[in-house]
Amino acid sequence: MTSDIFEALHGEIYGIWFLAGAALVFWMQAGFAMVETGFARAKNAGNILMKNLMDFCIGTVMFILLGYGLMFGENALGGFLGIPTMEIFSGYGAFDWSTFVFNLVFCATTATIVSGAMAERTRFISYCVYSGIISAVIYPIEAHWTWGGGWLSQIGFHDFAGSNCIHMVGGICALVGAAMLGPRIGKFTKDKDGKIIKVNAFPGHNIPLGALGVFILWLGWYGFNGAAATSLPQLGTIFLVTTVAPSVATVVCMVFTWVRYGKPDVSMCLNASLAGLVAITAPCDTVDCFGSIIIGAVAGVLVVFGVWFLDNVLRVDDPVGAVAVHCINGIWGTIAVGLFSTDTVPGYSLANAEGEKLLGLFYGGGFELLGIQLLGMFCTAAFTAVTITIAFSIIKALFGLRASAEEEITGLDVTEHGLTSAYAGFSIMDITGTQIQANENTDLGISDYEAAPQAMRDAAVKVTEVKVTESGESAARPDTGMHKVVIITRLSKYDRLTKALNELGVTGMTATQVMGCGLQKGAGERYRGVEIDATLIPKVKIEVVVSKIPVQDVIDTAKKTLYTGHIGDGKIFVYTVDRVVKVRTGEEDYAALQDVE
Amino acid sequence: MTSDIFEALHGEIYGIWFLAGAALVFWMQAGFAMVETGFARAKNAGNILMKNLMDFCIGTVMFILLGYGLMFGENALGGFLGIPTMEIFSGYGAFDWSTFVFNLVFCATTATIVSGAMAERTRFISYCVYSGIISAVIYPIEAHWTWGGGWLSQIGFHDFAGSNCIHMVGGICALVGAAMLGPRIGKFTKDKDGKIIKVNAFPGHNIPLGALGVFILWLGWYGFNGAAATSLPQLGTIFLVTTVAPSVATVVCMVFTWVRYGKPDVSMCLNASLAGLVAITAPCDTVDCFGSIIIGAVAGVLVVFGVWFLDNVLRVDDPVGAVAVHCINGIWGTIAVGLFSTDTVPGYSLANAEGEKLLGLFYGGGFELLGIQLLGMFCTAAFTAVTITIAFSIIKALFGLRASAEEEITGLDVTEHGLTSAYAGFSIMDITGTQIQANENTDLGISDYEAAPQAMRDAAVKVTEVKVTESGESAARPDTGMHKVVIITRLSKYDRLTKALNELGVTGMTATQVMGCGLQKGAGERYRGVEIDATLIPKVKIEVVVSKIPVQDVIDTAKKTLYTGHIGDGKIFVYTVDRVVKVRTGEEDYAALQDVE
Amino acid sequence: MTSDIFEALHGEIYGIWFLAGAALVFWMQAGFAMVETGFARAKNAGNILMKNLMDFCIGTVMFILLGYGLMFGENALGGFLGIPTMEIFSGYGAFDWSTFVFNLVFCATTATIVSGAMAERTRFISYCVYSGIISAVIYPIEAHWTWGGGWLSQIGFHDFAGSNCIHMVGGICALVGAAMLGPRIGKFTKDKDGKIIKVNAFPGHNIPLGALGVFILWLGWYGFNGAAATSLPQLGTIFLVTTVAPSVATVVCMVFTWVRYGKPDVSMCLNASLAGLVAITAPCDTVDCFGSIIIGAVAGVLVVFGVWFLDNVLRVDDPVGAVAVHCINGIWGTIAVGLFSTDTVPGYSLANAEGEKLLGLFYGGGFELLGIQLLGMFCTAAFTAVTITIAFSIIKALFGLRASAEEEITGLDVTEHGLTSAYAGFSIMDITGTQIQANENTDLGISDYEAAPQAMRDAAVKVTEVKVTESGESAARPDTGMHKVVIITRLSKYDRLTKALNELGVTGMTATQVMGCGLQKGAGERYRGVEIDATLIPKVKIEVVVSKIPVQDVIDTAKKTLYTGHIGDGKIFVYTVDRVVKVRTGEEDYAALQDVE
Repeated sequence: MTSDIFEALHGEIYGIWFLAGAALVFWMQAGFAMVETGFARAKNAGNILMKNLMDFCIGTVMFILLGYGLMFGENALGGFLGIPTMEIFSGYGAFDWSTFVFNLVFCATTATIVSGAMAERTRFISYCVYSGIISAVIYPIEAHWTWGGGWLSQIGFHDFAGSNCIHMVGGICALVGAAMLGPRIGKFTKDKDGKIIKVNAFPGHNIPLGALGVFILWLGWYGFNGAAATSLPQLGTIFLVTTVAPSVATVVCMVFTWVRYGKPDVSMCLNASLAGLVAITAPCDTVDCFGSIIIGAVAGVLVVFGVWFLDNVLRVDDPVGAVAVHCINGIWGTIAVGLFSTDTVPGYSLANAEGEKLLGLFYGGGFELLGIQLLGMFCTAAFTAVTITIAFSIIKALFGLRASAEEEITGLDVTEHGLTSAYAGFSIMDITGTQIQANENTDLGISDYEAAPQAMRDAAVKVTEVKVTESGESAARPDTGMHKVVIITRLSKYDRLTKALNELGVTGMTATQVMGCGLQKGAGERYRGVEIDATLIPKVKIEVVVSKIPVQDVIDTAKKTLYTGHIGDGKIFVYTVDRVVKVRTGEEDYAALQDVE
Repeated sequence: MTSDIFEALHGEIYGIWFLAGAALVFWMQAGFAMVETGFARAKNAGNILMKNLMDFCIGTVMFILLGYGLMFGENALGGFLGIPTMEIFSGYGAFDWSTFVFNLVFCATTATIVSGAMAERTRFISYCVYSGIISAVIYPIEAHWTWGGGWLSQIGFHDFAGSNCIHMVGGICALVGAAMLGPRIGKFTKDKDGKIIKVNAFPGHNIPLGALGVFILWLGWYGFNGAAATSLPQLGTIFLVTTVAPSVATVVCMVFTWVRYGKPDVSMCLNASLAGLVAITAPCDTVDCFGSIIIGAVAGVLVVFGVWFLDNVLRVDDPVGAVAVHCINGIWGTIAVGLFSTDTVPGYSLANAEGEKLLGLFYGGGFELLGIQLLGMFCTAAFTAVTITIAFSIIKALFGLRASAEEEITGLDVTEHGLTSAYAGFSIMDITGTQIQANENTDLGISDYEAAPQAMRDAAVKVTEVKVTESGESAARPDTGMHKVVIITRLSKYDRLTKALNELGVTGMTATQVMGCGLQKGAGERYRGVEIDATLIPKVKIEVVVSKIPVQDVIDTAKKTLYTGHIGDGKIFVYTVDRVVKVRTGEEDYAALQDVE
Repeated sequence: MTSDIFEALHGEIYGIWFLAGAALVFWMQAGFAMVETGFARAKNAGNILMKNLMDFCIGTVMFILLGYGLMFGENALGGFLGIPTMEIFSGYGAFDWSTFVFNLVFCATTATIVSGAMAERTRFISYCVYSGIISAVIYPIEAHWTWGGGWLSQIGFHDFAGSNCIHMVGGICALVGAAMLGPRIGKFTKDKDGKIIKVNAFPGHNIPLGALGVFILWLGWYGFNGAAATSLPQLGTIFLVTTVAPSVATVVCMVFTWVRYGKPDVSMCLNASLAGLVAITAPCDTVDCFGSIIIGAVAGVLVVFGVWFLDNVLRVDDPVGAVAVHCINGIWGTIAVGLFSTDTVPGYSLANAEGEKLLGLFYGGGFELLGIQLLGMFCTAAFTAVTITIAFSIIKALFGLRASAEEEITGLDVTEHGLTSAYAGFSIMDITGTQIQANENTDLGISDYEAAPQAMRDAAVKVTEVKVTESGESAARPDTGMHKVVIITRLSKYDRLTKALNELGVTGMTATQVMGCGLQKGAGERYRGVEIDATLIPKVKIEVVVSKIPVQDVIDTAKKTLYTGHIGDGKIFVYTVDRVVKVRTGEEDYAALQDVE
């Protein structure tokens, strides 16, 4: 009788902690949103936030309608999936809602990992669809194998909190998605044969937000790893290794990037904390302090390697490092169970189908546990890769996966959501990666100028007889032969223009973001249902001062480059410069302008 | 005896969870602060943060001194209020401080809702006073009715966590306050008869911060709704519906804005998550999964409707959507109890004064529960509307509710707190909504120029004989008849100037924010007690190029518009432009400048 | 037997709460990171985030290797320290990991306090080392005295959650560190004799982030103060005073700054919330509601005084107010135990070595408790001051504590981490505090120009015969004698240049941040291992219009000031201005330029 009371109250205690843990796992949604937003560019901030919000909301709907049943329904097809029922709606009073909520937030974590790797170029509609598919089908089936009583759980496969079932699965979806999408425009510079000769960096637009996201995730991870604990000693050790592994990973990454790249890299160390957390997720209830140190140390190196590997070998563009963090370290964590599991850990219970205790390779367990882990990991990975590839292929055929190049350059905030800026009022010139590339994924097609009818081109580039500044006798204000050409045009033309001017031989220029004000009509964008007054359009002002290069050449180049035939192509102004001095050399005027500086 | 132990430990378990829930509700203060800050403009960011911080701190003091007693003191006036005592200070050891803290953080939530709707134009002193009144009197009395043993609790009115007592009450205060304040300058464009012909959007300055706030609030809501649960099955269902309702609301809102406005609106979907949370707050312990889906779906539409309704029907300016989220969905949640309550929910206990079970209309309970809910809601709403109107009226008479138009245009950060910018170093040109309106609320009065003494005006606008640029024979550097006029002036004059130049016929211009540096003396603002060096003043630089329109006209217009007679009015510079090219048409010089682009 | 069950379950309940509290204390790391980042300047944001991340990670490693043993090992040297063992690795199953994790996160809090006061000028390598020393040695030893069974715990010294052992210790390290580092360049203006004549304000670059950090810390503090509670009434009172003290402190600070500085100061009020939390930390289990009000009220004034005191008396530059918040209020909280402790508080247990109850001075306890508190505080402070001074001295000798002046002006993000900006794409002109000072700490040495070889100087400043703009007969476009000089140069030269121009008599100028684009090669900075393309360099554009002051003088001054001999020194352009109007006075041309505006 007293033992019943003990059981009942023990159940209450850990039941409440279980739900508190679920709330912490929900909180990780905020962490993912902040990390992905901070590491992306400002022009896509609203879009990536929206995606993170919607994957949870759509995932909830999908998990209710289908996912939960597939994951926890009665075993079918030899433990391959569960059979969905309508119990959620019919048996409300008797249903175990704590378990439901807990698994729902885990499911949503899987889906949200993907958005980071596919950030800044995925169509929003396609995102909603594939995110729903992951929550409704892919995650529930593979998670059924391990956590829903399916075939992997029956042979002794162990993944306590999801290195395999969540992080690796999310990471594989991310990898497949990012590969199918292709890189962001400008990520890779190719030579004429299409060979990649340079990887370009697109720095995140808000590192403090990204860092906050990492702290949020780390906090949430105490719930992620700890919620399912059933005794205090077990929970204490889970908290320990969930602290040690990411700490060691971060220190190792700091040292590693310091040595390898010359300076300790901030964003990589933030990734390393997450990598350590991912790697310790599967073995958090089976390894001791020493094991967690090794697991963390390896994770800290793996994440740097992963980022390099994607950039330089796979040539897959993953803006936030999702593959390196979740896929690679998810695999590592799953394998680590087979290497470091030791029965000195409180609450240790790993056993094979015959009920014989399993131990890690380095703790005298031989290859049995390791083999089971590898088998489970490969099967889960294969299932995920196949299903997500099918899903993306269907979505691609139906909606297209990728935003158009113009949308990508302009930014998904305004093109997908009518949000002119997620930072209204701030002056932002987020032009990284607008370079035009000879890249089949990102070809902008023939230039608008080339495509315009001959008549329009004639009108646009008619060679007027301009004498104004050419007749320079010495007089009151003599023609110095030096001119400033000021070009005001749309932001998305910035890179094309600077490239063209560079080719013309212009070596120095300045760019300023200005607000073009006038009577222009905007695209009818709405903010909260209210149409936005389009009298203020961000423009870029390029200023070059030329002497040797004829002004007319600069004008012609600019006209050809900027012409689209639409309102907003911009204007060109020419001024006479009286004098130029180059500070470093003291050269003046003509000489001051002939430089490579 | 064993049953005593069970009770004691059960009490400990849920007592600790109760306090953890209170901490989560405290955390919602951060959420409100971030949402309201993110949705406001940058120039008011520090002010809105300060208001959110102070309403909690002032509210704590008020709740100790008066509020708690009014809410939980012995029933008086037939359950209308409680009688305050000094027990807080006298009976420290025996007092139930858990309950006190829990109700304190609930009280603070009510007060903080109001700041969003009244953001960007409310005087800080007035804010402190009304926020204190809500915490000291208004909330405690109406909450006494439902939660303090007052008359509503005795007839079976049900509001588990505050759709009615907190969100609707806060929302009504917000609505009354926003209506009494009037709209922000520039929110509504009026024609000459004072009829509103256009609603203008003021996009939030930091959507990522606002999104973070929504995630914070959602997390906090698990404590808000769940803290008072007394059994595990009940807590599990509360977690479920607190997840389902906002998820469904967000999905519905996304689809709804997509269909209605052409694109899925980010900030509206963020509001929708909150709307779903507000709506499920009262019925979170009485509805099942299906009920929460319907409640959420309706909330997702209601919030869009509410924002539209305030803008287009009530003509009340609510910068963050507080009325649509809290007032309208608070009402909806309170009514929903009467519609969807079902006794299949674990821990269900709704009963009328006679102890007879009450059920929702759609679950066979007839109109009794619905009637009680409507009665309670109307009485609470009426009490709130009356008391807050009296409070605001008194404050208005004593201090004035609204900041001056100049303060509003300049921004409350610097005028109320001496904080030159909440984002020091960032280039911000946050000029949305500086439009001058023929609006009784926002009339800036006659222009400074008109008001200046004749002598000053003569001095300022003396028509000097300027020949300099008018005598254009062909020569070394001929007068092209095209001039760039550069006007550097204070930011707050930007909109007035562009309007005036537009009326003159100037159709294209660019604006850049520059830092004016010199020997100017600032207003002696202090940051952390240290006077800020005013050698760097943000200014706006407007550049127009004119040919047909005489330079003198531009200068005269600028002088009349910018004149205040104070240092900092700015300067005007004129340059000769050698050549102009319009890219789209290829037109040059004079022709290039005659456009509507 | 039933009592055993009660004990066991009671232990489980508070054991889980203890770990949840540890997670909340971990969360405070995010709070510190956000506060310190928000209050610093944008150019150091990545660096300060990295420091906050690393102190936790390095601290974890250090606490495992050494700290925990020193703190909790068997008493040695009369309770001075514990003897480290290898139990962490050998006795995994039997170890109390909950206690370990809890003390680890407390330890990390101590270390992280220091980074704020030393922000924006400390070398990263030195930071890593001293942070490790605090976690490995300084904190563990002094905390052993009070919490590890050491000598202070034996005489009845009381510090429930760390006003003394954590906040004062962290604050003293911060004070010593900031004093040894010296102020940031430009913080204090000195006259020719080296006397400080002015304190300058460096406004934080992201106040919303700082405010979020305060909310995070406040939330975390419920765990910080409450985690070790062992009964529900005790926990309830801890929550109460942890709410009341900061609320009162904030209200008092608001009123105080309003009266003293004319306006309620936002960032100071945020500090005040923290000050109230720090002050209530030691006495949170020994004072009642009234006591917490007094403690909070004093804290609210102390923090303002502390900031003033450091600026104006100690002349120590503490960017975030860490000393005022943690050191001064840590001392106040420790003393407050001796003043306000009262046994009406549930769970009260203060007793001296003889087991006699101790009470606060104002509650009839006489001076005994107060004396013990003062003794403990002084000993802890002295130990900390001595050890940290030794540590900093050694680090200074080995690595140097302070970044070079050039690094400091450029910003630690790029110089320490190769992060060109933590806000890529944003236009930031964060030039506060780049003023050159006659300050031994911050002397930039002789100017580069002076240091250059004579040959280079001759080349740079050769006085060319420039007639171009001097021959002004009236003609087609007459020379007006007014010229605009545009100087484009590196951002770090901005302040030097404006100072020099001011001395020349130039009174008005505008500065704009522009992006210099060209073929320049950057410093090979890497972001996530990928080299950053250095074709876009932030530059500053200074525009002055002169008439009386010869253009040549402006050019000569600029050349002397900007010359470094390296690529990137910039260029100077001269234009003729046709006309100038001064709006306020209506003066034109020459007259318009002779002002002090």
